[in-house]
Amino acid sequence: MTTQAAREIPGIRFNGLDADQMVQTVEALKKDKTLAKFEFRASNRWIDGMVTRSSIQGFYGAGAEDTSRSKPFVFTSGEPPVLLGANEGAGAGEFLLHALASCVASTAVMHATARGIRIESISTELRGDVDLQGLLGLDPSVRPGYQRITVKVAIKADCSDAELDELVTLVRGHSPMYDTISRPVPVVLERV
Amino acid sequence: MTTQAAREIPGIRFNGLDADQMVQTVEALKKDKTLAKFEFRASNRWIDGMVTRSSIQGFYGAGAEDTSRSKPFVFTSGEPPVLLGANEGAGAGEFLLHALASCVASTAVMHATARGIRIESISTELRGDVDLQGLLGLDPSVRPGYQRITVKVAIKADCSDAELDELVTLVRGHSPMYDTISRPVPVVLERV
Repeated sequence: MTTQAAREIPGIRFNGLDADQMVQTVEALKKDKTLAKFEFRASNRWIDGMVTRSSIQGFYGAGAEDTSRSKPFVFTSGEPPVLLGANEGAGAGEFLLHALASCVASTAVMHATARGIRIESISTELRGDVDLQGLLGLDPSVRPGYQRITVKVAIKADCSDAELDELVTLVRGHSPMYDTISRPVPVVLERV
Repeated sequence: MTTQAAREIPGIRFNGLDADQMVQTVEALKKDKTLAKFEFRASNRWIDGMVTRSSIQGFYGAGAEDTSRSKPFVFTSGEPPVLLGANEGAGAGEFLLHALASCVASTAVMHATARGIRIESISTELRGDVDLQGLLGLDPSVRPGYQRITVKVAIKADCSDAELDELVTLVRGHSPMYDTISRPVPVVLERV
């Protein structure tokens, strides 16, 4: 992360972030790389039909078990009638699009802040194509997951179009969820 | 999807699903494969700092634009203090774990129902390892995304352990989000 711009404006808070705090965080990570290791967690249980519920609270990171959350975030997933549900919640594939969208925006904001760019607005529109023949096992040549995801991002900021293009390139190279979805992740699924 | 077991018990509703309806859905998809094509969507906007909000409502599937949802699902993402936020919502990486967990459970329930297996309970525990040096661009050899995700699933059902193992194998082969995360998906991110 380029922190020169942030260094030039110490103590200034913009984009809702404290540039000093960002620089300090990055410097701490450079000195002790183990602080950069995080483990995120979720517990999920099946409710009925296509409905499940996750509870998300603790995680490990910055060298310690986090204790900042007094209660868990709770998310219910469901399906629409056409997929055998009653819209009890968004579907799994929709939650994944939200994960990608939020990561794209927050990664852009972090890297913009480090460069001294003030963001006015970021909005994204996502589309993901899936063919249910894969889920149902009707055609082994059809993958079960998303065949393609498109993310259209509109950004307004106090910089040139070229700098905005560069920011989007940074997001492609550094967004954790863009990377997780666009490149293979080892997923170990085991019964206990 | 094996629907023989479900055929043997027509009209019976179990696992919160109607086995007849499942068979009819699968038969309809076999006759007209275009019905299996779905497009899911999300709209997201940056709020401030590390906070973003998604709105999820419409989608295309089963040959038509869905109109079953009278209002959108709204999700707010945030970060904990150690990641420059104030726990305004779960983080992007945590939403992704929920997407995976819910997909694993609902895929298991669908395939169990098609085989006539009655599920008593499914619960999953997920862990995802990430190294923030990737996000921050501090080490180009460190990927930004999850380095590994483990999913431990506990299932109770009216079948043998061997059948449960087979069910987990079916999930590995057919879960859309397991596939999306474990195998590369083309993600087109473009500025508009």
